[in-house]
Amino acid sequence: MSLQVDLNCDLGESFGSYHMGQDDAVMDWITSANIACGYHAGDHNVMRETVGKAVKNNVAVGAHPGFLDLQGFGRRSMQVTPEEVFNLIVYQIGAMNGFAALYGTRIRHVKPHGALYTMAATDNALAAAIADAVYQIDKRIILFGLAHSELVKEGRRKGLQVAEEVFADRTYQPDGTLTPRTAPDALIHDVDTSIHRVIQMVKEQKVEATDGTAIPIQADTICVHGDGAQAAAFVENLAKALVREGIQIQPAGDPR
Amino acid sequence: MSLQVDLNCDLGESFGSYHMGQDDAVMDWITSANIACGYHAGDHNVMRETVGKAVKNNVAVGAHPGFLDLQGFGRRSMQVTPEEVFNLIVYQIGAMNGFAALYGTRIRHVKPHGALYTMAATDNALAAAIADAVYQIDKRIILFGLAHSELVKEGRRKGLQVAEEVFADRTYQPDGTLTPRTAPDALIHDVDTSIHRVIQMVKEQKVEATDGTAIPIQADTICVHGDGAQAAAFVENLAKALVREGIQIQPAGDPR
Amino acid sequence: MSLQVDLNCDLGESFGSYHMGQDDAVMDWITSANIACGYHAGDHNVMRETVGKAVKNNVAVGAHPGFLDLQGFGRRSMQVTPEEVFNLIVYQIGAMNGFAALYGTRIRHVKPHGALYTMAATDNALAAAIADAVYQIDKRIILFGLAHSELVKEGRRKGLQVAEEVFADRTYQPDGTLTPRTAPDALIHDVDTSIHRVIQMVKEQKVEATDGTAIPIQADTICVHGDGAQAAAFVENLAKALVREGIQIQPAGDPR
Amino acid sequence: MSLQVDLNCDLGESFGSYHMGQDDAVMDWITSANIACGYHAGDHNVMRETVGKAVKNNVAVGAHPGFLDLQGFGRRSMQVTPEEVFNLIVYQIGAMNGFAALYGTRIRHVKPHGALYTMAATDNALAAAIADAVYQIDKRIILFGLAHSELVKEGRRKGLQVAEEVFADRTYQPDGTLTPRTAPDALIHDVDTSIHRVIQMVKEQKVEATDGTAIPIQADTICVHGDGAQAAAFVENLAKALVREGIQIQPAGDPR
Repeated sequence: MSLQVDLNCDLGESFGSYHMGQDDAVMDWITSANIACGYHAGDHNVMRETVGKAVKNNVAVGAHPGFLDLQGFGRRSMQVTPEEVFNLIVYQIGAMNGFAALYGTRIRHVKPHGALYTMAATDNALAAAIADAVYQIDKRIILFGLAHSELVKEGRRKGLQVAEEVFADRTYQPDGTLTPRTAPDALIHDVDTSIHRVIQMVKEQKVEATDGTAIPIQADTICVHGDGAQAAAFVENLAKALVREGIQIQPAGDPR
Repeated sequence: MSLQVDLNCDLGESFGSYHMGQDDAVMDWITSANIACGYHAGDHNVMRETVGKAVKNNVAVGAHPGFLDLQGFGRRSMQVTPEEVFNLIVYQIGAMNGFAALYGTRIRHVKPHGALYTMAATDNALAAAIADAVYQIDKRIILFGLAHSELVKEGRRKGLQVAEEVFADRTYQPDGTLTPRTAPDALIHDVDTSIHRVIQMVKEQKVEATDGTAIPIQADTICVHGDGAQAAAFVENLAKALVREGIQIQPAGDPR
Repeated sequence: MSLQVDLNCDLGESFGSYHMGQDDAVMDWITSANIACGYHAGDHNVMRETVGKAVKNNVAVGAHPGFLDLQGFGRRSMQVTPEEVFNLIVYQIGAMNGFAALYGTRIRHVKPHGALYTMAATDNALAAAIADAVYQIDKRIILFGLAHSELVKEGRRKGLQVAEEVFADRTYQPDGTLTPRTAPDALIHDVDTSIHRVIQMVKEQKVEATDGTAIPIQADTICVHGDGAQAAAFVENLAKALVREGIQIQPAGDPR
Repeated sequence: MSLQVDLNCDLGESFGSYHMGQDDAVMDWITSANIACGYHAGDHNVMRETVGKAVKNNVAVGAHPGFLDLQGFGRRSMQVTPEEVFNLIVYQIGAMNGFAALYGTRIRHVKPHGALYTMAATDNALAAAIADAVYQIDKRIILFGLAHSELVKEGRRKGLQVAEEVFADRTYQPDGTLTPRTAPDALIHDVDTSIHRVIQMVKEQKVEATDGTAIPIQADTICVHGDGAQAAAFVENLAKALVREGIQIQPAGDPR
């Protein structure tokens, strides 16, 4: 049985007259699109266009719900209750499902965005609220969460398929958590090192932590980026390297 | 075969800490709830609560999409393309469908709100865009529009069930259109007159216009209000009067 | 020299079609109006109307800036930098100054709203950012902050006049901080007890804490509320009781 | 006495994480910055940064107020009353004045944005509301409006200094109005033609209309753009050509 991995990217982040990201360039190489749902980014026009492009490019359509904070792009943590999070997830998944229906498809996965993603990695109650909302809307949806996170644990407990997500350009601490962005060694800038680490994560289910030890990690899906000058070129290079290694690139999980 | 009519009311118009309407009081008497979808009013918390109440009270759940203009409550006409309107309808119906799914139901009808409703009454292209969006999302949905409007015409042309809506507290001009609110005789303030006119519209399919002539009108659904001091009492009085006349109050259209 | 105190109230919290508070009823009894600036509540129409009413009623016009979070009414803490807070304070004070200028006056005081107020009570960097913004816009403005808070300390350090604020309906802990709302003894429901405590704070500069000990407190301005069924009646009763005790009710600070 | 003209450009149109325009590149060549005020574009962070840059580059700081419609970028006409427009102008000018005060300056001019600008060119009541708001806030402010428009007429009637604005890349109809963008000959794509026409407008106070006739026009200020691939290069070329013709580039109007 061959190795396989998913490449996911946040897309559809433009808003009104504001353009963001190189969606068209990345779409050729990724297998899962996390499409913004109009809260932290995106709007009804952008959503329709982006879902249409994903379908045309045979990329899995996913919802990428976030906080109602366009000015902060959903990256600011906010004081929210699990009930509030449950409701905002239902709203955004529902809205995205409208556009998916237009193109004869449905949402294949859900990946929370920004501060919501980060908070749900460690806050069990928020993680459970997200998993519950996804489950109640459509139990076939695959929940994406940070590897080792509360979110993937709660998704599994609820009975959802989950995909553990790893980052190509981030380092990990000995306890398996991401090194905070504020730390000097948080980011990996060298492209070859990034690619090498991703291949190791996929093939060996482990990654070298900041202290040099090898820690176990499950890489079901790799987060890549669509904005920034080198983003699209990196995705292409990563995808080609994975293929050379005999790793099949395909959407995470089994469609039910 | 007995006469029947639907009583519909805009509900779920609260937002965050802002309360609007007497949803609980009206819910006892109406048969169709037009629930705001977070654009001109409502939010994800209010939507969930309102859908839950409607289901519990056996009131048909409808989406009430409007312009993205909370400050103007969706009442200001805006310069929009049919494509924009198509997309904002898909988004809002989709979001509402998420909450309907939570309660094991689905949207039974769609009634555009405020300026969008008014514009779609006379603008054929906007009317067609709305009908098309509703049809593509779920062709079982019943489209509510002003009696004689382009919206009901386009709904029928598309193959949707439609419900022609009349107003209990508004007068009609000889050509069948509503008298503009700016006119001195636009509103009917006397409760008994209102009720008498509604009964006439339902039983005789006609209404007396401002010039005294009788004009034909089809009253599939009657718009009542849930805000204002006397609103809930009026709805109760109207409902009881309809029942006394042997008119059955039930949601418009045939569920498919 | 006679005793004096200020009665302040949050006003102008309506938004678009949404009404909040009994501004007209409270306006007769208070001396300082904290007027919402369009971020957490209020809009340009409400601001103009509210400033006009305050001027007409000889109530001091104050800006009540908050987070850009209408849905959460500015009550949710958010992850913000001091620079962001500096800028949002400048924006909102500036906007309010526009309306003050219309009525030939200027902002007399600034009181941050909701989560921003609470965060600035203990977060020194946010407190300093607020004090700095107020000072740079107009150093004559009086800064309102929770008694004992970082905000009043930073205001004084910057060279601003400050007013220490106390609450009529809240209890204090032995260390002088407010008892969190989640605690069972956080709120004082008995009107006479509230009034008695306020008079004691003003006349004796002390208040009884939750453990029965007396703690020192400086009551320059008392926060009263304009929403809720009994709110306006309470303000009237409090104002009359203060006058009976020979305490003069007037805006905090000395105009410069 | 030498000829002179102003070059104005819309700046500060970024929002949160969304970047728009090449503000830095254009800033070297223009003399008046129309800075977005947080309604149709811009936010408190962007405003502070942009005012700072304008002051540093010795470019006149202007407010560029628009409709509260970020998704439509203020380009959609909306149904608004003169009173609403008055209030939204006061709010946005006030907010901008806050940032101007930080840098020891004040707003030198006001130019309405997008649909508000276009509507105020022909709608006398809206034009009067804008002129009135500007006058009441600060009668020294110079009002920018389309040449021949109701806005400049109402500004003059009110007693404001006005600047008649012309467009380098648009054609004019025989009656002096701009050719609608929907017409095939609305835009001038050739750079040399654009520059030639601007110079003619400034030196001869006339321009060739679409029917070949020469119509009178007063070019106090020329609108240039900061977005688009060739925008900054065009501004530089235009500025240099004006200087070669002995035309002095300086902010419109006389500071009072």
